[in-house]
Amino acid sequence: MSRFFSEKYNSLTPYTPGEQPGTRDYVKLNTNECPFPPSPLAMKLAAEAAGSLNLYSDPELKKIRAELADYFGIKKENVICGNGSDEILDFAFAAFCDKNTPAVFPDITYGFYPVFSEANFVPYKEVPLLEDFTVDVDGLIENEGTVFIANPNAPTGIFLPLGEIEKILKAKKNNVVVVDEAYIDFGGESAVKLTGKYDNLLVTGTFSKSRSLAGGRLGFGIGNESLINDLNTLRYSRNPYNVNSMTEAAGIGAVRDDAYMKKNAETIAANRTYLTEELRKMGFTVPDSAANFVFAAKSGCKGSFLYEELKKRKVLVRHFSKPRIDDYLRITVGTREQVDILLREIKTIIS
Amino acid sequence: MSRFFSEKYNSLTPYTPGEQPGTRDYVKLNTNECPFPPSPLAMKLAAEAAGSLNLYSDPELKKIRAELADYFGIKKENVICGNGSDEILDFAFAAFCDKNTPAVFPDITYGFYPVFSEANFVPYKEVPLLEDFTVDVDGLIENEGTVFIANPNAPTGIFLPLGEIEKILKAKKNNVVVVDEAYIDFGGESAVKLTGKYDNLLVTGTFSKSRSLAGGRLGFGIGNESLINDLNTLRYSRNPYNVNSMTEAAGIGAVRDDAYMKKNAETIAANRTYLTEELRKMGFTVPDSAANFVFAAKSGCKGSFLYEELKKRKVLVRHFSKPRIDDYLRITVGTREQVDILLREIKTIIS
Repeated sequence: MSRFFSEKYNSLTPYTPGEQPGTRDYVKLNTNECPFPPSPLAMKLAAEAAGSLNLYSDPELKKIRAELADYFGIKKENVICGNGSDEILDFAFAAFCDKNTPAVFPDITYGFYPVFSEANFVPYKEVPLLEDFTVDVDGLIENEGTVFIANPNAPTGIFLPLGEIEKILKAKKNNVVVVDEAYIDFGGESAVKLTGKYDNLLVTGTFSKSRSLAGGRLGFGIGNESLINDLNTLRYSRNPYNVNSMTEAAGIGAVRDDAYMKKNAETIAANRTYLTEELRKMGFTVPDSAANFVFAAKSGCKGSFLYEELKKRKVLVRHFSKPRIDDYLRITVGTREQVDILLREIKTIIS
Repeated sequence: MSRFFSEKYNSLTPYTPGEQPGTRDYVKLNTNECPFPPSPLAMKLAAEAAGSLNLYSDPELKKIRAELADYFGIKKENVICGNGSDEILDFAFAAFCDKNTPAVFPDITYGFYPVFSEANFVPYKEVPLLEDFTVDVDGLIENEGTVFIANPNAPTGIFLPLGEIEKILKAKKNNVVVVDEAYIDFGGESAVKLTGKYDNLLVTGTFSKSRSLAGGRLGFGIGNESLINDLNTLRYSRNPYNVNSMTEAAGIGAVRDDAYMKKNAETIAANRTYLTEELRKMGFTVPDSAANFVFAAKSGCKGSFLYEELKKRKVLVRHFSKPRIDDYLRITVGTREQVDILLREIKTIIS
């Protein structure tokens, strides 16, 4: 820290992203990337866009927003795009929370939510997950403030049915409810269909997972036009050119090649079933996941130990040193081959 | 505005980017883009990177930072990269200003500075440019706070010699001085060489202008390691994956192909001399510009009128409805052909 750094950030603890080892020696199952390359159409359009990078990207991002609007059956005025859904979430914490309106989210969820709260000087309340790691819907409702729900939740992978989301939307008519659907394509049901019905619903999505564009940085928010306008006020006050033109082009390709995404998501879902069953056979507790990762713990086997042992064997998974989940690993569902390597190494370690 | 938007943003007025018409019918001289395509090496590396977009970009951006460090003869710990230099500037307003430390900048400068101040809830003081549109160095020194100087300044194009920058650095040892060098390659002298000497100096730069990567979104900040760490604290609290991997690759290509950039910058400088002289022959007042644009006014000819007439004739330039500069146009220096079209149309309009 320099002597010039504003003391308003004294209590700010940055987010720790998953390791990016920079070499290809690892079986990398730690950051929930898709093991399949982007759609060939996405790559082609991105490469073409590289030829006119001397011109600014479109600050209105009209083309990708129109593409997404068409895909979801909404209007482009209901869509904002960002540099990953992280940026949209950051804007949402800024726009819809303040000292009188705290952020409310589960205690075990995407680790960036407390950081976004602090970076935006917003108080927050963590509502513990229930015993079975499902979201405490009544607890979220009872607490005053703007609700943030990752659905499926991370790192548990558990999906909260839309009926429960609607219960929150109805109970908290005077607060925005943000549903972060980064992993929705792997088995959940999207709340986008509810955005026409509830003016307090903002759904965020990403191209980083099912659409294989993590390195491109493209996310979106969908909601009532006035919510989107609020987020745009912040976007135009921070970074109007937040999405580069190669990524806008890649995103258009990815949406158009929906069949490619669906096929990959189905493969991942099948591999997830296989991985879950094999881990359970080995005595692991694994909640049913609707995401591209599973959350697994084995009684009597420390999570940090398993993580370290796997890393020695060139398999990277994610471990969180946090109460209640300290013994769990979050394991990205990779290709069948990657899953088999992981299972083989776990077998060696625990035997 | 929705009923949910936090009232802390009541006075926030977003930045208005230059028009992006979306068609190629216009001679586009309004957003200071480079008229030349990116370096072939930049395009090649970007296209190659599209193949592994399923993996996240490197949150540490080690490769492009090492490339820039090598280019400037510094260490990679002295470099931060961002989604355009706008993002680095936003972080700097957040990190080095607060209610006790206002931002201080000229009244006529990059229009985003007041917006960054407001978005970060930071008070700011605008110090009027002197009569001849040069920066009032003593005025900047006299005002308490963190100094932001665009050098060359926009929209005037006037370069402030490094001796004057050093005068500010020495006089304001307890404040950060940010030198925004978006246009430095077209004729100025960079303050990067001073960053080893002054721990209160942050220099920002961009790949959007001389390096023909406006659509890629890549900017950087250079300074003392502890200043860079402060900015990284904010980066990791907002968007650790702020630069996508295609753009990181393009950036590496652009730095390596320095000869290409220098040749383009020289062409632009020659076209700028020609444009300046021709406009002066027509009776325009044009300050000497060190940037890839000129600032021009003709007595008795309203700036808004000229802007509108040029637009009708499919030539886009930038006009700011602001006291003191209302009669000026900011005209990007394009190819010789574009400059000739502009001059021809101006001749028709004023005759």
